[in-house]
Amino acid sequence: MIDLDFDKSGGLIPAIAQDYLTKEILMQAYINKEAWELTIKNNVAVYYSRSRKSLWKKGETSGNVQKIKEIKVDCDLDSVIFLVEQIGDAACHKGYRSCYYRSIKNNDLKITGDLIFDPKVVYKK
Amino acid sequence: MIDLDFDKSGGLIPAIAQDYLTKEILMQAYINKEAWELTIKNNVAVYYSRSRKSLWKKGETSGNVQKIKEIKVDCDLDSVIFLVEQIGDAACHKGYRSCYYRSIKNNDLKITGDLIFDPKVVYKK
Repeated sequence: MIDLDFDKSGGLIPAIAQDYLTKEILMQAYINKEAWELTIKNNVAVYYSRSRKSLWKKGETSGNVQKIKEIKVDCDLDSVIFLVEQIGDAACHKGYRSCYYRSIKNNDLKITGDLIFDPKVVYKK
Repeated sequence: MIDLDFDKSGGLIPAIAQDYLTKEILMQAYINKEAWELTIKNNVAVYYSRSRKSLWKKGETSGNVQKIKEIKVDCDLDSVIFLVEQIGDAACHKGYRSCYYRSIKNNDLKITGDLIFDPKVVYKK
């Protein structure tokens, strides 16, 4: 197991999910040591939810799991990239392919990303 | 100015620098409100250094500034992507194009990134 520097920032480090084919950045979340170990072990992205204060098995509700194709580690061992195959083609809970579906244009946010599903249907809210 | 959610995580949020042409992720650092405002104002990436506890004008020493081409904002307003033109072709202080120059292979780290410069020469250490 590769040892990351979880101590520097209170146990959590950023993990960036990037589409392994298109290189689009899909989302950024956080991992703790347990999420890291589970991701490596199961080859599916597991994060730590800061709001729920618990492990977050990405796709457990929506089915949109992220299959790990490659993992990159940064120079300081405190940031990682998960190169993934995004099942369901959408990473964002709002139904977009990427959580970064908005860009700044003329000092405002403009939607530039692709909407893949209706979150009201998928999450049955 | 777009208001990001700096309060959620103690004033700092992750900023991911991505090459605007190749989509390679070059680095991930943090921004505070001041770094964010300066980045927008000057169109050049400014981060906040957690170790130095001060603004970090990327490229000030090495000359490897990051010209902003586009900025993407995530669904929760607490993570951003700087799509940049990386002057000098290297973002990492270790001389690699990307800070993520290592991948996990067979439970070990293998260098997979491109070395662009010799940090001993550039930083005169």
